[in-house]
Amino acid sequence: MKHVMDYETVSLDDEKSALVILDQSLLPGEIKVLSLTNQRDIWKAISTLQVRGAPAIGVAVAIGIYLAAKEIDEDVFDKFYNKFRSALEYLASARPTAINLFWALDRMDSVVLKNATKPIGEIKNILHREAVTIKKEDILACKNIGEYGLTLINDGDGILTHCNAGQFATVKYGTALAPIHLGYERGFRYKLYATETRPLLQGARLSAFELFERGIDTTLICDNMVSQVMKNGWIQAVFVGSDRVAANGDVCNKIGTSGIAILAKYYGVPFYVCAPTSTIDMNTPTGKKIHIEERQHSEVTEMWYKKRMAPEGIKVYNPAFDFADNELVTAIVTERGIAKPPFEKNLKTIIES
Amino acid sequence: MKHVMDYETVSLDDEKSALVILDQSLLPGEIKVLSLTNQRDIWKAISTLQVRGAPAIGVAVAIGIYLAAKEIDEDVFDKFYNKFRSALEYLASARPTAINLFWALDRMDSVVLKNATKPIGEIKNILHREAVTIKKEDILACKNIGEYGLTLINDGDGILTHCNAGQFATVKYGTALAPIHLGYERGFRYKLYATETRPLLQGARLSAFELFERGIDTTLICDNMVSQVMKNGWIQAVFVGSDRVAANGDVCNKIGTSGIAILAKYYGVPFYVCAPTSTIDMNTPTGKKIHIEERQHSEVTEMWYKKRMAPEGIKVYNPAFDFADNELVTAIVTERGIAKPPFEKNLKTIIES
Repeated sequence: MKHVMDYETVSLDDEKSALVILDQSLLPGEIKVLSLTNQRDIWKAISTLQVRGAPAIGVAVAIGIYLAAKEIDEDVFDKFYNKFRSALEYLASARPTAINLFWALDRMDSVVLKNATKPIGEIKNILHREAVTIKKEDILACKNIGEYGLTLINDGDGILTHCNAGQFATVKYGTALAPIHLGYERGFRYKLYATETRPLLQGARLSAFELFERGIDTTLICDNMVSQVMKNGWIQAVFVGSDRVAANGDVCNKIGTSGIAILAKYYGVPFYVCAPTSTIDMNTPTGKKIHIEERQHSEVTEMWYKKRMAPEGIKVYNPAFDFADNELVTAIVTERGIAKPPFEKNLKTIIES
Repeated sequence: MKHVMDYETVSLDDEKSALVILDQSLLPGEIKVLSLTNQRDIWKAISTLQVRGAPAIGVAVAIGIYLAAKEIDEDVFDKFYNKFRSALEYLASARPTAINLFWALDRMDSVVLKNATKPIGEIKNILHREAVTIKKEDILACKNIGEYGLTLINDGDGILTHCNAGQFATVKYGTALAPIHLGYERGFRYKLYATETRPLLQGARLSAFELFERGIDTTLICDNMVSQVMKNGWIQAVFVGSDRVAANGDVCNKIGTSGIAILAKYYGVPFYVCAPTSTIDMNTPTGKKIHIEERQHSEVTEMWYKKRMAPEGIKVYNPAFDFADNELVTAIVTERGIAKPPFEKNLKTIIES
């Protein structure tokens, strides 16, 4: 039987003209691969977190917009481009916070504009190559993040992670979990603590699953137990991913991240953010400028449950993300190196390197 | 139809020789009153949180041990007392952290020893009076906590609470929610934020329910959203209860409390603890000395859910409580007044007053 870690998070099936994803909304109970051939299904897969994780979303929309372009039956560039832009804007509306979604679509848009004088068939081929390149680059970026991250931890360390910034959030290795996976392959043994990550339980369903399947010593905790495990002295470092890093080093990530960063500071635990440079948004000056997605109330009150767990009619606030102030961030680990404070200067140096 | 808030959390049915409780494990979906006539059912009701909240547990065991004593068919004191002690130790083992449980049992034990020369029938009557007194005192203590707490907040304030330290955690009014209920009766309008409080969801099931039923503006959030609502500037004060306050002012309460206290400090939000003096344990010097109950893993991985949400075999850490260091506590509100730092000195003054 194929092991779940052998499935690809995101891939392109050229023969079927399909975006192929592992449906993450069903894990860990069910392993189901989806072959998505129309734009509405791709949009829905992103919106409902069947594919999630900033880097994975980037690769998914790159493949998605290529598939949309492939179907456009126009020979004249302007007409082709009009339809291409419509498809692009549609995919861009699937989720608002992860910058990788916009970054990947911008990149796909750029190659179209740069090759506007070429035949449409050739532009489609170029889009295919670009999507494949974005995917390959993601794997390499994650591997390099893992290598840099490894320099920050020691064999036997207790490491806390939030949400899932692992294999399932990327094409391979993950971002925050890349150092753990790489280190594990080299014989290092860490003690992982995964927060369950309400309301969508990506920690319990994905991180705990991914780490446990790999044989890594992993303990699941509720989100409100972070302070206690830090107080117990069990955590030597926090590793999280990011959906958008602002130019000043404010880090937007899954709701709960800013709280963990504050607790880490209180307990003197280093707080590391792992993200490819595609997640760094030099056009967003601070975290305050990031649009925070708010999601359905039912995620909090009834999703997953046998029955509704809160009174009918109660108000709910369900932001999907928050941002940690840069003063709480020890370092940002990218595929091109580790940025430390002052982030304003050091992120710029890394981006321009 | 009887309104749920009219049900008593804990009461004694003399005719049926029963401890009568509102089954809190079924709220808010089902309103069920349990009439418990044997010690095993009383023990189980406390252990499984059918009755919960430190003050309510105190009243429940006071009634419970009276009912146990009533059934002891001995005329000689030594023989009676042996059986009474066995029953007392059995009830004492139901939950380890809330001091009110031990406080109430000690108080019941004291009246027995103080009246050892009296006929057993008379001792039983004295135990009955003591249990009724403990219950009455709890109502009065909560009302006074409410009055003192009211002096700390203003009309329109945003107030965050964790777990349920409301009506259902006591006989009436609650501790942390007593100022809210009293203020509401007097026309003050607060904006309440209730954390859902994983894994047992006392915030979603009980606090949100209790506040919403009363007509108080209440918003439910996940535990990991506390930092975000504070960052939004929505919270002017935190009010929580306590299961045990150490002599130095360290506050043991539902898991997650210490994290909220740290976030409150970071955002400059006052952190208030409401507890009757019966919750203050001068024999426990610091929070470090408090035995923290660890509960079943299934509460985290599968309870409430349609299906298991974490991989089979994953390790789980499930502490039911944590403690906030006294340096994080702005004030402790008791029925005898408000203690501010230095707590070591000021709690002693209140206890001895």
